[in-house]
Amino acid sequence: MPGLRISFLSDYGLTDEFVGVCHAVIATICPEAEVIDITHGIPRHDVRAGAIILRGALPYLPPGVLLAVVDPDVGAERRAVAIRAGDGRLLVGPDNGLLSLAAELAGGASEAVDIARSPFRLEPVSATFHGRDIFAPVAARLASGIALAECGDPLDPTGLVALELPRPRHEDGALLARAVYIDRFGNVALGAEHDELAGSGLKLGRAASIELADGTSHTAHYALTFADVAPGELLVYEDSSRRLAVAISRGNAAERLGIAIDDELRLSAS
Amino acid sequence: MPGLRISFLSDYGLTDEFVGVCHAVIATICPEAEVIDITHGIPRHDVRAGAIILRGALPYLPPGVLLAVVDPDVGAERRAVAIRAGDGRLLVGPDNGLLSLAAELAGGASEAVDIARSPFRLEPVSATFHGRDIFAPVAARLASGIALAECGDPLDPTGLVALELPRPRHEDGALLARAVYIDRFGNVALGAEHDELAGSGLKLGRAASIELADGTSHTAHYALTFADVAPGELLVYEDSSRRLAVAISRGNAAERLGIAIDDELRLSAS
Amino acid sequence: MPGLRISFLSDYGLTDEFVGVCHAVIATICPEAEVIDITHGIPRHDVRAGAIILRGALPYLPPGVLLAVVDPDVGAERRAVAIRAGDGRLLVGPDNGLLSLAAELAGGASEAVDIARSPFRLEPVSATFHGRDIFAPVAARLASGIALAECGDPLDPTGLVALELPRPRHEDGALLARAVYIDRFGNVALGAEHDELAGSGLKLGRAASIELADGTSHTAHYALTFADVAPGELLVYEDSSRRLAVAISRGNAAERLGIAIDDELRLSAS
Repeated sequence: MPGLRISFLSDYGLTDEFVGVCHAVIATICPEAEVIDITHGIPRHDVRAGAIILRGALPYLPPGVLLAVVDPDVGAERRAVAIRAGDGRLLVGPDNGLLSLAAELAGGASEAVDIARSPFRLEPVSATFHGRDIFAPVAARLASGIALAECGDPLDPTGLVALELPRPRHEDGALLARAVYIDRFGNVALGAEHDELAGSGLKLGRAASIELADGTSHTAHYALTFADVAPGELLVYEDSSRRLAVAISRGNAAERLGIAIDDELRLSAS
Repeated sequence: MPGLRISFLSDYGLTDEFVGVCHAVIATICPEAEVIDITHGIPRHDVRAGAIILRGALPYLPPGVLLAVVDPDVGAERRAVAIRAGDGRLLVGPDNGLLSLAAELAGGASEAVDIARSPFRLEPVSATFHGRDIFAPVAARLASGIALAECGDPLDPTGLVALELPRPRHEDGALLARAVYIDRFGNVALGAEHDELAGSGLKLGRAASIELADGTSHTAHYALTFADVAPGELLVYEDSSRRLAVAISRGNAAERLGIAIDDELRLSAS
Repeated sequence: MPGLRISFLSDYGLTDEFVGVCHAVIATICPEAEVIDITHGIPRHDVRAGAIILRGALPYLPPGVLLAVVDPDVGAERRAVAIRAGDGRLLVGPDNGLLSLAAELAGGASEAVDIARSPFRLEPVSATFHGRDIFAPVAARLASGIALAECGDPLDPTGLVALELPRPRHEDGALLARAVYIDRFGNVALGAEHDELAGSGLKLGRAASIELADGTSHTAHYALTFADVAPGELLVYEDSSRRLAVAISRGNAAERLGIAIDDELRLSAS
């Protein structure tokens, strides 16, 4: 019987050996485990970006273990945790909100343990590389079938750190939402489900107005897909994670419009 | 019995989660499939570079499924296809020429289906991420042993989009060829097989002249390998895909000479 | 029975298809082999960085084959080798020192063969891509259980190229050590074990002085981990490979202090 799969996300990047060493640790502990690298390109220390990507990927991940490490406070007081979600998924990582959006989508945390002193940690635990010494070993044990309760000390799942995302708001027929993620193509995902556009007056196929925090205003097409507008044109669309998003066909919207994470955009019919 | 292997190439990059989510989709549908990532670093939307890399890698790939996604027209009218080649390989991707060079090398397309409305697509199909919603699911089904004909609607394989590469030409004892691929080291592959040098007068171990489109002329060594010239020196050589190529030993030829894709180079004995 | 694992490190990067093609070659020769990518982000041609990373990763790698390619002299006279270490590990790569630190840590080379003309090489061997044509095929054969002696011509393991790392030295109560590796976060690993600090007068939790080759002097905290100092502050610490290291909490030490590989740092109590 194959071990469970481990889906792995981090901000380690692929330039150094951090990800590879975590893979090696997993392979040593649970040779049957298969690791799916969701991405290791989360911007350094950007817990929120990691949480958003993890939640977006969740519906496509096979059952098993989610291992996530974006950990600006490694070595500090933040807890290291393993969680069982309502749907049976197991999540392992720092208790800094990184796991919270995915856990919520997976039915909420039903059981949790503190794994900082897990019997399965690699000793001596380094002060700076808990991915290798705590998180990967525990994920590998869970994948091999060890019970969650054996991996650490029980803790109250209602006390886990939860992430608050900026919510969109409606104002004078416009929708105001913040940029929450920018991909490498410069496509800007907003902190709003596409369905939350309802009431903003935008009509598919029609022009939309985007006002930025810097006071500039831009005309976009509210379209289904990039191919619906000419190269270089701005569009508002539903991205593949069902979020409201802004992009430029064959261009880089974040760069050209100067949009940064957390900037508020005001969308209205134009 | 293990599933077939899936060799996967794209321009998704590894910064975002696109590749990881495609892996996850494949693992969910066909847990036994093993995925070989050829590269995901194809320059964004560069169908020709993708096609060239795919063809160059083909002789080394194990039998099975080729999944390739470089898709500037996602959401537009281009078809999504799965193809059987003469040698039995199965190729999945957009019908924009990306698969054509590899399919030709693999014996030509003998059977093809349109998979835009494949029964195996993930619904609702997003407008922007067909890798996840159409191509990866169909590749996974093929890897699990499902027949090609069950994956979509039959189409005439002679109608598939074919890519035309610039051909080299001989002129006054010189060989004129265009830059078709530049790797991350700045090595420039030309649109000519190494064997097409015959008749140009170049002799291995002797000096060669390279004239660029901007009128500048450079002296290079026609050599077997980098180690045959001093660091910093220019060489003309047969690259590992048997193409004619130009490089600088321990340097970046494209950068130093200012060569871009499609630039024509004129090679002659000097 | 599964094949042995192959741990793979190189300077190929992930932008091009080099790594993917090596994976494909391995999968074709030994379908059961599982490949762990340690990293392919070693700075181009930086044999020493590759050797250091390989040695640091070794204690975490599962038994099996180590395949490493950082090969500035491909095509030149350097040998291609496969080595058995005292602990049974098999190492494959160029004989330029890249394997030497890991081999030493693994108990020293007890047997070695020259694989340049291995019966398992892919012919014709290209002049520039021995990873594909020599190293990966031999690693795959070893993973499939072929004896080392069958992979090439025997050679005296005492004649293998060994790498000399700069040693730290003590002077007037200070420790002088050179920068040997800088990771993508700008953390600077020095050519000294953390334990070699003994005698320098540094006390954990106290201030330390770092003098650079350019004559500038900086105050740092000698701390256990990043979280022990305020964001933006400099620290001296034991990194996860037990080396002495210098970093800036949530910052880039190499960049801010202008430290490059081989620079000597002078550490003393301040």
